[in-house]
Amino acid sequence: MSDDQTYVESGVITSVRARVVSRARALRRRTERADARLFLAEGPQAVREALNVPGNVREIFVTEYAADKHPDLLTAADVPVHLVSGEVLDALADTVTPQGIVAVCEFVDVDFDDAVAQTSTLGVLLAQVRDPGNAGTVIRCADAAGAQSVTFSTGSVDAFNGKTVRASVGSIYHLPLATGIDLADAVRAFQAKGLQVLAADGSGDIDLDDADDSGLLAEPTVWLFGNEAWGLPDSDTELADHVVRIPLHGQAESLNLSTAAAVCLYASARAQRRTRS
Amino acid sequence: MSDDQTYVESGVITSVRARVVSRARALRRRTERADARLFLAEGPQAVREALNVPGNVREIFVTEYAADKHPDLLTAADVPVHLVSGEVLDALADTVTPQGIVAVCEFVDVDFDDAVAQTSTLGVLLAQVRDPGNAGTVIRCADAAGAQSVTFSTGSVDAFNGKTVRASVGSIYHLPLATGIDLADAVRAFQAKGLQVLAADGSGDIDLDDADDSGLLAEPTVWLFGNEAWGLPDSDTELADHVVRIPLHGQAESLNLSTAAAVCLYASARAQRRTRS
Repeated sequence: MSDDQTYVESGVITSVRARVVSRARALRRRTERADARLFLAEGPQAVREALNVPGNVREIFVTEYAADKHPDLLTAADVPVHLVSGEVLDALADTVTPQGIVAVCEFVDVDFDDAVAQTSTLGVLLAQVRDPGNAGTVIRCADAAGAQSVTFSTGSVDAFNGKTVRASVGSIYHLPLATGIDLADAVRAFQAKGLQVLAADGSGDIDLDDADDSGLLAEPTVWLFGNEAWGLPDSDTELADHVVRIPLHGQAESLNLSTAAAVCLYASARAQRRTRS
Repeated sequence: MSDDQTYVESGVITSVRARVVSRARALRRRTERADARLFLAEGPQAVREALNVPGNVREIFVTEYAADKHPDLLTAADVPVHLVSGEVLDALADTVTPQGIVAVCEFVDVDFDDAVAQTSTLGVLLAQVRDPGNAGTVIRCADAAGAQSVTFSTGSVDAFNGKTVRASVGSIYHLPLATGIDLADAVRAFQAKGLQVLAADGSGDIDLDDADDSGLLAEPTVWLFGNEAWGLPDSDTELADHVVRIPLHGQAESLNLSTAAAVCLYASARAQRRTRS
């Protein structure tokens, strides 16, 4: 009997000490994810998206209840499927109400050169973004608005953090994602390809509406967004072609990162769509 | 010596059992807030906003460190200020890193009739919104976009939940907020005042860009947003004058509530601003 078999009852893994579980569980830590280039996708929707990418899923952990509920996911997967107890699943998941299934997946980031090559009209550059939920929501907005890539600067949150993956609701699989890129290098690469870089910042001397009216937003654009708490320092805004501020009509002093990104990206998408039609 | 004095050391309240603390702490529960019509504002920014509203703050709990750091807040407040230990402050706060100050404040919601009366060009109606963070972010976006009111339908999250208050970043104080209103009644009241009600939903037969091009968005509008998970049921969208969908240019199936609200509200604000100018 192997070590692991002592943790199995009637074909269900019942202990977090089983080797396959502890190995997967280590991926909750950023350093382990970075070393293995593997992350955990949690919940049926995320697992379904991962399975759509050939070769992306390495193995699946599922409770008996979830296995009965989502048979399509398990028959689609040509990978090891481990039946686990609810307690083991809880230990792998980082939501309070995990939905019974977690997959070990390969990182899906691309080389930055590829991200640049695929960005023709709209891209996103995140500088030192730290909140994983915000980062995931921005990826989702970028996808919805039709952006062709998202790039995370060095010093940003891990794009494969559980919260980021969940907040992206599958969008990490929908568009090229480049991570760990020096911000100045990234800006120069997009500019060299003929895209303007617009920094979104409250200090901007151009109002988003005026940028729209002047035709600026219709140009191929990479939006640069800064940290949730401190925004973009001058050294970052100086890299951009223009600094654009979202007009604040009421008394709010700012928008949060993901809503600001949604407003800017949709303003560009609309302006570009109008110009094309 | 009163009961409370046994929990005080050198003028600092050191026990959560002190009566003033346990009474304030009860306000972490929705039912207690509703009965007392009081809530807890946490952090120097929220307390500063509350102090700007005459009579809004009932009492303040502050650590010695925060009292030294924000003397302006305490001199501005003509209310009881309780010096408390870090442990007591932690018990009152619901963030992991409270910033040393919590104020007991009166509810600032208004009669729905007042909210309607003050809504001339742009309003927000939330139907069964349950996530407190999302609700607060929508209030912040509504404020930023210049909306004149936010109304929560019956069955929505408590607008004075700690997370909602924090996510609003002061905006609960900036525009009229009405809560617990029957959705159909609310829609009819806004329509009777001459505002159109636009439901934001993926099922909409009008695209937001087309709504803009056709001039629809320039009209006085109340946006109706649904629940984070299930959106708006047919019975709700049927109340609206039009159902508008945000165009999805990539593969994302939807936006989250707060980013969708930001896109819709800013589209209206821009259209209305253009028409005026």
